[in-house]
Amino acid sequence: MKESGKALVVLSGGQDSTTCLFWALKNFEQVQTITFDYGQRHRIELESAKKIAEMANVSNEVLPINTFNILGGNALTADEEVRLDLNENELPNTFVPGRNLIFFTFAAAYAYQRNISQLVAGVCQTDYSGYPDCRQNTIDALALAINLGMESQIKIHAPLMWLTKAESVLLAKDVDALKALAWSHTCYNNQFPPCGECPACQLRAKGFEKANIEDPLLSRPLAEK
Amino acid sequence: MKESGKALVVLSGGQDSTTCLFWALKNFEQVQTITFDYGQRHRIELESAKKIAEMANVSNEVLPINTFNILGGNALTADEEVRLDLNENELPNTFVPGRNLIFFTFAAAYAYQRNISQLVAGVCQTDYSGYPDCRQNTIDALALAINLGMESQIKIHAPLMWLTKAESVLLAKDVDALKALAWSHTCYNNQFPPCGECPACQLRAKGFEKANIEDPLLSRPLAEK
Repeated sequence: MKESGKALVVLSGGQDSTTCLFWALKNFEQVQTITFDYGQRHRIELESAKKIAEMANVSNEVLPINTFNILGGNALTADEEVRLDLNENELPNTFVPGRNLIFFTFAAAYAYQRNISQLVAGVCQTDYSGYPDCRQNTIDALALAINLGMESQIKIHAPLMWLTKAESVLLAKDVDALKALAWSHTCYNNQFPPCGECPACQLRAKGFEKANIEDPLLSRPLAEK
Repeated sequence: MKESGKALVVLSGGQDSTTCLFWALKNFEQVQTITFDYGQRHRIELESAKKIAEMANVSNEVLPINTFNILGGNALTADEEVRLDLNENELPNTFVPGRNLIFFTFAAAYAYQRNISQLVAGVCQTDYSGYPDCRQNTIDALALAINLGMESQIKIHAPLMWLTKAESVLLAKDVDALKALAWSHTCYNNQFPPCGECPACQLRAKGFEKANIEDPLLSRPLAEK
C-alpha cells in the first residue's frame, strides 16, 4: 500500500537512483525528482536523468551548483583521471568531499518549500565504493541536522542502504525499473556502450551477473543513444 | 595561549563573523577566511568581508553558490521585501532554508582539502533572530554529519553561541575587533548610514547600547564609504 504524501527523489541518472525512483512510485502517491548539475564531467548523467524521469512520467528539475568546481580536488568535477588506487587518505580520487551532504541538504530545502516531507536517495552502505557519505550513520546525522536547522520533519529514505548490488538489481525488477535502467549511466569513462573496465562498470556488471539478470543497458540499441 | 593549527572563518561581512575573525586571530596560529557569494541582495556584504579581511591581514576567498536563487522563497536572495512579522511557519521571511547547513558544509569541504580542522562561525543561539540553523544543537548535528560524511575531524567553533549581543560587543572590544566593526554590514535595508529601523539595525544598536560602547559604524566618515 502506498504511503500518502509527496516524495522527492534525488535522481543522478545512475543505476541506484533510477531504482529508487521506481521504488518511490510504488510507495508514495506523488513523486517528483531533482537532479544536480554540479559541473560533473559526465554531462550524460543529466540526459539520463531527464529521459528516465520521462519514462516514469514524473517531473525532473535540474538545480545548478557551481561551487564544487571551485573547490576542486577530485576526479569527477576536475580534469583529473579516475584512478583505481586510493588517495593518501584512503578514499578514492572520485570522492567529492561533502557532495551528498550538500545534495541532500539542498534537496531538503527544495522539499521544505514545497511541503514535501519524504526524500528518497540511492545511497548504499553495502557496496559503498569507499564513499563515507553513503553510509547510514552519515545519513542519520544529516537528517537530524536538517530537521533541527529547518524546523522540518523530513525523512530520508535509502531503500538500497543494506542491499548488495545483486539484491538491488532484484529490487529493480520487482519495482519495474529494468526498462528504465537501460538509460541509466554508470561508466566512469563516460562511454556507451560502457567500457566495462572502470570500477563503476565492474560493480554494475557483477550485480547483474549475481542476480542472474541481463543488464538492459547492454542491449540498448546504439542508434537510440 | 594560541592553539596550534589553522582555522577557517566563515566571514559574511557582518558584525558577528567579524568579531569571530578577530577572536580566531587571538586563538589560532594561522587564520584564513571564506565568504559566500550566494546571490544575496546585499552585495555590500562581500565588499565588507574583503575590507575586513584586509584589515585583519588574512586571505579572503569568495566561493560562489548559485543554487539559492533557484530555490527562492526568501527575502534575502529573492526580490521580496523584508517583513517584521513572521511567516505562517513562524519563521522570519529572511530565513533561507538550509543556508547555514550549506555554508558550513562547503566550508568544511574547503577546509578538508587544505588540512584545516578548525572552523569558526558567527552563529548565536541567544539572539538568534528566529533562525533555527544558528542553534547549538543544529551545529552539533551538522558537525557530526560532516565528520562522518568526510571521515574528517573538523571542529566548528561558535564563540558567540551563548553570548547576548551586548556580551558580543564586549568580546569584540577584548579581541580588538572594534576598528574593523566600522566596516561590517548589518542593515537589512542595505543603507549606509544604516536605516536604524530594520530588525538587524535595532538588534545591533541595542547590543552596543547595553555594552555602553559606541558603534564605530556610526562614526565612520561618509566619504570613506
